[in-house]
Amino acid sequence: MFDLIAFDADDTLWVNEELYREIESQYVDLLSPFCPPEITSQKLFETEMANLPLYGYGAKSFTLSMVQTALELSRGQVRASDIQQIIDWVKAMLAADKPLLPGVQAVIQQLSTRYPLMLLTKGDLVEQHSKLACSGLAQFFQHVEIVPFKEKTVYQNILDRLKITPSRFLMVGNSLKSDVLPVVALGGHGVHIPATVTWAHEQVDSHNHGPEYHTLSQISELPGLLEQLEKTGG
Amino acid sequence: MFDLIAFDADDTLWVNEELYREIESQYVDLLSPFCPPEITSQKLFETEMANLPLYGYGAKSFTLSMVQTALELSRGQVRASDIQQIIDWVKAMLAADKPLLPGVQAVIQQLSTRYPLMLLTKGDLVEQHSKLACSGLAQFFQHVEIVPFKEKTVYQNILDRLKITPSRFLMVGNSLKSDVLPVVALGGHGVHIPATVTWAHEQVDSHNHGPEYHTLSQISELPGLLEQLEKTGG
Repeated sequence: MFDLIAFDADDTLWVNEELYREIESQYVDLLSPFCPPEITSQKLFETEMANLPLYGYGAKSFTLSMVQTALELSRGQVRASDIQQIIDWVKAMLAADKPLLPGVQAVIQQLSTRYPLMLLTKGDLVEQHSKLACSGLAQFFQHVEIVPFKEKTVYQNILDRLKITPSRFLMVGNSLKSDVLPVVALGGHGVHIPATVTWAHEQVDSHNHGPEYHTLSQISELPGLLEQLEKTGG
Repeated sequence: MFDLIAFDADDTLWVNEELYREIESQYVDLLSPFCPPEITSQKLFETEMANLPLYGYGAKSFTLSMVQTALELSRGQVRASDIQQIIDWVKAMLAADKPLLPGVQAVIQQLSTRYPLMLLTKGDLVEQHSKLACSGLAQFFQHVEIVPFKEKTVYQNILDRLKITPSRFLMVGNSLKSDVLPVVALGGHGVHIPATVTWAHEQVDSHNHGPEYHTLSQISELPGLLEQLEKTGG
């Protein structure tokens, strides 16, 4: 029934958003002499959104937005050592292990024997390739696509190129907005596995959308869902 | 004779390195109270090379390496307004037009009617997609591949995936190291079109290499070379 099953990466296969939120928490503390934490967080988010078209996603963009916001909120009073600290936090995060989420290793390995699998993620090219290489999962993916933005046309182009009918494509991810809704809108199948922590940018009101996608609480439920879909034809 | 002709992007199709060198020139002036220009340039290059595995290529990496180098060379004495200036320079550069090099528009358009063309570049995902979109050339490329690093195995993987024999593949670019030598090593054809300005990281001693690739002084000579190769079978 499925010619291709694609997986989002960050917070679907491995821990990511938590690491960003840990740094943000240290960052708002660092700027507390200049600005209350909730204002710092809000301003940082606004800066990230304003920079998104120019910078895209990923840790380098996050660092540059933190530096810019620190300069602005402190009216230039932030210390050089604070800027250094921000850079060092993200470098340490980039170099740190990104643990696989529970059940990921077994599910990906098992499904790779039955379906062609794709890793399909947005984010920074070098960061995502590096995370994939360190994950030990690279051998299970026939295709790897790292795209600047996950929009309906991006999915359409990938399926066109691979000559895959949307109805025979299934996408699994933690973001309704990026992973599930654009695929469902194309006539594909979407599986939503919500993460513990979701970035504000990825949040949508799920009550606005019909029951045309599946929600699982963890990835280990995926093989069972697929079996059921294969039996019932969707 | 060729099933695929691929083109590098920066300094092969459009101006790039010049823009980086203009910023670097302003940057060494900015840091001149702390450090002589040639030491600043050397230190910046070392920082970029040290950050390369973690950050990859592109303007965000360049910005972060400039900020880090400024903090280090000034021993934390650099002003917040100087850091802001560095960020602003690169943002302006990212948003600025990247003019096509002479002859590019006509050659790409002409060759696209006779060969499948690929854009094959390293660099930052968002930056390269944005430059391609602004170039007006996107419609002429059947394939677009943005890769984190241009090594022999990367070319091999792309050709394997597209089921193209190296001897029927030709790559055109301004960097012997990234565009020409890895392709020639695979048994493919390489065309070197040196740029006016070449980043130190891309420089190799061309006298160490045999005559197994072609050198052109500008892209408008490419259709003539292809015609000649088609006649003589290489």
